[in-house]
Amino acid sequence: MLYDLIIIGGGPAGATAGIYAGRQKLKTLLVTKAFGGQMAKNTVDIKNYPGFESISGLDLLQKFEHHLKQYEIDIEHEEVKEIKKTGKHFIVTLKGAKKLEGKAVIIASGADPRSLNLKGEQEFIGRGLSYCVHCDGPLFFDKTVAVIGGGNSGLEAALFLSSVAKKIYILEYGEALKADRENQEKIKNIKKIEIITNVALKEIKGKQFVNEIVYQDRKTKKDVVLPLEGIFVEIGYQPATAFVKNLADFTEKQEIKTDMETFQTKTPGLFVAGDAKAGKYKQIVIAAGEGAKAALSAFQYLKNEKLI
Amino acid sequence: MLYDLIIIGGGPAGATAGIYAGRQKLKTLLVTKAFGGQMAKNTVDIKNYPGFESISGLDLLQKFEHHLKQYEIDIEHEEVKEIKKTGKHFIVTLKGAKKLEGKAVIIASGADPRSLNLKGEQEFIGRGLSYCVHCDGPLFFDKTVAVIGGGNSGLEAALFLSSVAKKIYILEYGEALKADRENQEKIKNIKKIEIITNVALKEIKGKQFVNEIVYQDRKTKKDVVLPLEGIFVEIGYQPATAFVKNLADFTEKQEIKTDMETFQTKTPGLFVAGDAKAGKYKQIVIAAGEGAKAALSAFQYLKNEKLI
Repeated sequence: MLYDLIIIGGGPAGATAGIYAGRQKLKTLLVTKAFGGQMAKNTVDIKNYPGFESISGLDLLQKFEHHLKQYEIDIEHEEVKEIKKTGKHFIVTLKGAKKLEGKAVIIASGADPRSLNLKGEQEFIGRGLSYCVHCDGPLFFDKTVAVIGGGNSGLEAALFLSSVAKKIYILEYGEALKADRENQEKIKNIKKIEIITNVALKEIKGKQFVNEIVYQDRKTKKDVVLPLEGIFVEIGYQPATAFVKNLADFTEKQEIKTDMETFQTKTPGLFVAGDAKAGKYKQIVIAAGEGAKAALSAFQYLKNEKLI
Repeated sequence: MLYDLIIIGGGPAGATAGIYAGRQKLKTLLVTKAFGGQMAKNTVDIKNYPGFESISGLDLLQKFEHHLKQYEIDIEHEEVKEIKKTGKHFIVTLKGAKKLEGKAVIIASGADPRSLNLKGEQEFIGRGLSYCVHCDGPLFFDKTVAVIGGGNSGLEAALFLSSVAKKIYILEYGEALKADRENQEKIKNIKKIEIITNVALKEIKGKQFVNEIVYQDRKTKKDVVLPLEGIFVEIGYQPATAFVKNLADFTEKQEIKTDMETFQTKTPGLFVAGDAKAGKYKQIVIAAGEGAKAALSAFQYLKNEKLI
């Protein structure tokens, strides 16, 4: 089957691109392991997607998925291994080796949680260390935990944990928190949340489960041992773009560079939307808007090249 | 009162910018004559704003307005006459002469329906000629009407009218319709809709109300008189940016040019989002995404300049 368009990713950008492609009657395939992207892991209710004052990540992703499924597009629940261009067409190879052919491709594969690259980190995943407070937070009832990272996701995670845990440290490498004022104000009066800045992490320790985290105080240069039972890593996301390789140029963060108006990469017919794309602000509504734009650009490309 | 941010416009871009500014706890004023922008005039249900499979323009704008009003921001229901910069601050003058001061401004004033500049046009506004099929369409029950413009809005207007009018002509200047395939397919089998291309309009005629439209067939060069009772103008929109003047550069269509990443104009602190901004695709979700980006950029500007 030769598709007009293959969309890689089922988060806000991919789902919106799918809705637009469906409306344009493009023969479309959407490849995603699961719908929702980062929404699926959202720690607190989403309050900044216009039209919904407050909605859980799960509810919003279901609305996106249901909306998408109003249109006749094929869906493959798999991960992409590689993408190549042969002549005018793209060959998308899935992890299970299946090959798919498309005339244009939109990469909306989003980003994965960034890891600490810390001694003990890999060892304690699922044994006190988590990248998903929404999934694992409730397991830490009445326990002492740390959130690594003083940005919005760190503070939102701390806020979420405050209804569960006994004590929450927010550990931030910099001199001050980076989160929104609103988030900072929200946690300010929660006594069980303690902010520690100038933290250079050294090691995670424990027996079967996490028991302590060791860091150097960057001001005093002294090592500190913090006893705790849980660690939530909230230091941002890494674009899931490794499968693209030579077809595009990348930023230092491995985001894909595109033309700023059409979102086309250096390879004609290859477009990017959402968190996989180079861009300063990562938000659901921004990703959705970019998905719409990429789909309209792809349609224009297919028409211009007389491929449809 | 000195505001951190003044947002001009209450459509999807302005409302979203307001939600983001509210979340950032910026002292914000939003100036808009009415909420919703073009959504308020939407001819058919909106089916491409992700999360809502199908929703009327009125319902969606109310959801945006209600969402915005969760945050403490001031609202002025008025039009803007002029905007100037004095030192580090902006002075926004309303049509009623009231002056407002802000440290940053987001222009999200959208676009107005474009007129035909045709003989008889002004004379028959409200007397058979309309720019808002959703408002006025129902008045044309069992009558013969023409929709001017073969783009998406023209075809959507024709579709809307097909449940009311007896006969609908779609008059298009070009050789072919410009609308989406989906829209073209939708009207294809509606017998009361007749498409006429290569139409160079000459004049609208009537006594008290519209009676006929005169055009030249661009192929045969012959004049044609089409008897009808209603005319709906659907030839696009013109950005409402006249009040900006020297603070920004403009495209030929009077859209405001900005940096593509921050949406800042050539004037520091002055940002643009939505249909008032230069950009190829005009969609609700794209405007909303741009509103979020502009608000985050404005916040960054205010922080960088130590204005907050």
